[in-house]
Amino acid sequence: MLELSLIQTRGFTNVTENGTVTGFQFLLRMPNYRGVWGSLVDGIEITVDGQSFPANAARWTLGGRAYTLDELQRTEGLHWQLDELATITVPVQGGLKPGVHDLAVSVLLRSPYIPAFVLPLRFDDRRQATLVPETTDIPGGFKYGVSTYSFTGDLHTLMTLEDAMADIADLGATGIELLTQTNIPGYPDPSAAWIDEWHRLTKTYGLTPTNISSWVDNQMWLDRDLTVEEATAQLQRDMRLAHELGFTSIRPKFGVTSPELDPHPTWEETVLRSLDLAQELDVLILPEIHSPTPIKHPVTQGYIEFIDRTGTDHFKLMIDTGIFQTVVVDDGHPGFDPDEVPPFLQPLKVPASELTEILPYVGFVQAKFFEVDETVTDLHVPWRDVLTALHAGGYSGWLSSEYEGRRDPYRARDQIRRQHLLMRSIEADLHRHA
Amino acid sequence: MLELSLIQTRGFTNVTENGTVTGFQFLLRMPNYRGVWGSLVDGIEITVDGQSFPANAARWTLGGRAYTLDELQRTEGLHWQLDELATITVPVQGGLKPGVHDLAVSVLLRSPYIPAFVLPLRFDDRRQATLVPETTDIPGGFKYGVSTYSFTGDLHTLMTLEDAMADIADLGATGIELLTQTNIPGYPDPSAAWIDEWHRLTKTYGLTPTNISSWVDNQMWLDRDLTVEEATAQLQRDMRLAHELGFTSIRPKFGVTSPELDPHPTWEETVLRSLDLAQELDVLILPEIHSPTPIKHPVTQGYIEFIDRTGTDHFKLMIDTGIFQTVVVDDGHPGFDPDEVPPFLQPLKVPASELTEILPYVGFVQAKFFEVDETVTDLHVPWRDVLTALHAGGYSGWLSSEYEGRRDPYRARDQIRRQHLLMRSIEADLHRHA
Repeated sequence: MLELSLIQTRGFTNVTENGTVTGFQFLLRMPNYRGVWGSLVDGIEITVDGQSFPANAARWTLGGRAYTLDELQRTEGLHWQLDELATITVPVQGGLKPGVHDLAVSVLLRSPYIPAFVLPLRFDDRRQATLVPETTDIPGGFKYGVSTYSFTGDLHTLMTLEDAMADIADLGATGIELLTQTNIPGYPDPSAAWIDEWHRLTKTYGLTPTNISSWVDNQMWLDRDLTVEEATAQLQRDMRLAHELGFTSIRPKFGVTSPELDPHPTWEETVLRSLDLAQELDVLILPEIHSPTPIKHPVTQGYIEFIDRTGTDHFKLMIDTGIFQTVVVDDGHPGFDPDEVPPFLQPLKVPASELTEILPYVGFVQAKFFEVDETVTDLHVPWRDVLTALHAGGYSGWLSSEYEGRRDPYRARDQIRRQHLLMRSIEADLHRHA
Repeated sequence: MLELSLIQTRGFTNVTENGTVTGFQFLLRMPNYRGVWGSLVDGIEITVDGQSFPANAARWTLGGRAYTLDELQRTEGLHWQLDELATITVPVQGGLKPGVHDLAVSVLLRSPYIPAFVLPLRFDDRRQATLVPETTDIPGGFKYGVSTYSFTGDLHTLMTLEDAMADIADLGATGIELLTQTNIPGYPDPSAAWIDEWHRLTKTYGLTPTNISSWVDNQMWLDRDLTVEEATAQLQRDMRLAHELGFTSIRPKFGVTSPELDPHPTWEETVLRSLDLAQELDVLILPEIHSPTPIKHPVTQGYIEFIDRTGTDHFKLMIDTGIFQTVVVDDGHPGFDPDEVPPFLQPLKVPASELTEILPYVGFVQAKFFEVDETVTDLHVPWRDVLTALHAGGYSGWLSSEYEGRRDPYRARDQIRRQHLLMRSIEADLHRHA
């Protein structure tokens, strides 16, 4: 699906020709209620951060070919469809700096059935958009991914799973994290056609399945809990599904039995019975360390003791970076009393040094965040501390973006671009000073 | 795609069992970020127009089967997916009156990984929704359709063409009008696969293709106009496309040469050369009588003279009901100066009696409107006058809804429900008094 704004979030980037950055480009939705012949386009006025470009400055790419405005106006059979985004390329030596830009456009169109004195029709849009650089992971450094949880509310309403994947690839990430009960149509028994499509899409967008988030719903009935056999069956079914979809780890969220999030007492037996399968499928089982449970807490320490005791290398910790949060988030959370900040949104302020201590036990990092502002500053999570600890400890696994801020339509799509920009710039800094 | 609100526009209707109306139902989107087992649903509190129903009053339909809340909570493998709408059926003897209702819900869900003292999670929604009755056209009366123009802005962003078709069928209409340059991917050369899909969808939703709106873009280049041959080729290409897609009429909008909307002088020769093809394909050619051009105007009279002179029965008038508008619309119009009301939004106030005079020349009615309020009153178009004139003159053709009001997301979807309710209730009245 296309974004409602004319200027799309996806596709805002610099353009390199023969090794030189010669401009920037963005994707533009057809603003009129009907498509038009390319010859009826009268140009696009563009202002970026206060610098203006006249209507004929940009190149237009439509139907896979680039045109100057003059060339476009002389085309004969080219039709700009409503379901086709135009790529607008603006010549600026050196392009734009990676970051958040103020981008305004007026799209000018003629329409022969409208009297000439009214023409051209003028369609305006102005928004903040985040330009991401062409990126490659630093060898031996972090790997960058995004969880589809980030798109909560937008999926199935404003965007498809394929849109999410296109967004993730567009910002330079290479990993994708799914949620079993959220993203798999027909769960727990997706069709073979859907599984084929999943593999086709990951290939198309160059994405590696990272972790799948699942649940063991121990208290799914009112009158009794799952038996150990039933809980194990839930976990193992999802492990097989994870494996079939190409994921290399699974996060099972167990039912809890206390306000302190003590996991259901059957968790340990459930995992023990599944370690052989984890080995066989080579799928890591990752309990999530999530606010309000800090690192120095019996639950987390219980998992670590389990690892030490069993000697397994297929059970590790998933760290949700919400535990490092230093500032309260006051956005509310769907499903909860709006007058109360739920415990997991209270700043737990775990010091990053504690991460260093347990790093050998960490299998995955969910890069939870709530808001990165237009100066590319995170308002709640101290990324420099967290990434410094991970870097110093030699962590070379995934940072999987998990946006959990305001659920305004489309907001996540730009927020994850900002967050990746922020994390990558800190990592580059750490390598420069190494 | 699903609507962002939990309560969906589509699907709000009364329920008839064994000939008796036993309640009403609506479609509900899964409110949580993950799907849940049916057993984790704790019910739905519903208030309609101030009348409240407790959490266990409604029946839930999921996976094609209906459940009481108690039955739902005892299910074992039933999973409510994010891409699946639940049908909520509320028992009310006699159901609800057709019209706009104030509908509020709180959806209650348990989630085992969240501490029990916080549960159930509560997800609220409240909106106006329009209940449409089960309808059938009155024999010999009007036929009801909808133009996809109504969904401008929502198509490709919030809804697919199939969503539009589902909406149209859901409100009881049987006709669908398309726009060539708007709705046909790959126009002017749609793929065979798309054409097959179009026919499959019209069959699935029981919709009859009515009119296709097209353009002859006489001034598509800056340096010269289309020749008669080129204009004829544009029209005839679209006529063949219309026929292939099952449409029985085509509205060609010609380029204009004056502020009074005089059509390009080649219009007459273009149509003359196309009348044989119109006969062969049995496709009516319909010039549109659209504000600011009234009925008593040289352009309209020119078309009528053309019909009389040629004796053709394949060239008739399309009446856009915007010409009967009595009150100014102050919503603005995309592409135009926001400080000026464009001429076609000024109330032209054509008396309905003039429609009576030209009715033999009328082939199609585009039921243009801008706003029907929550009392099911149109603020701008005098429907009783218009429909009385059509009824008195024996018109039994299409009334094809064309919503042109504010382009707030999703707004059209409810507005067309209100408008159809209004038009049908007036028609029923006219038949009662006949």
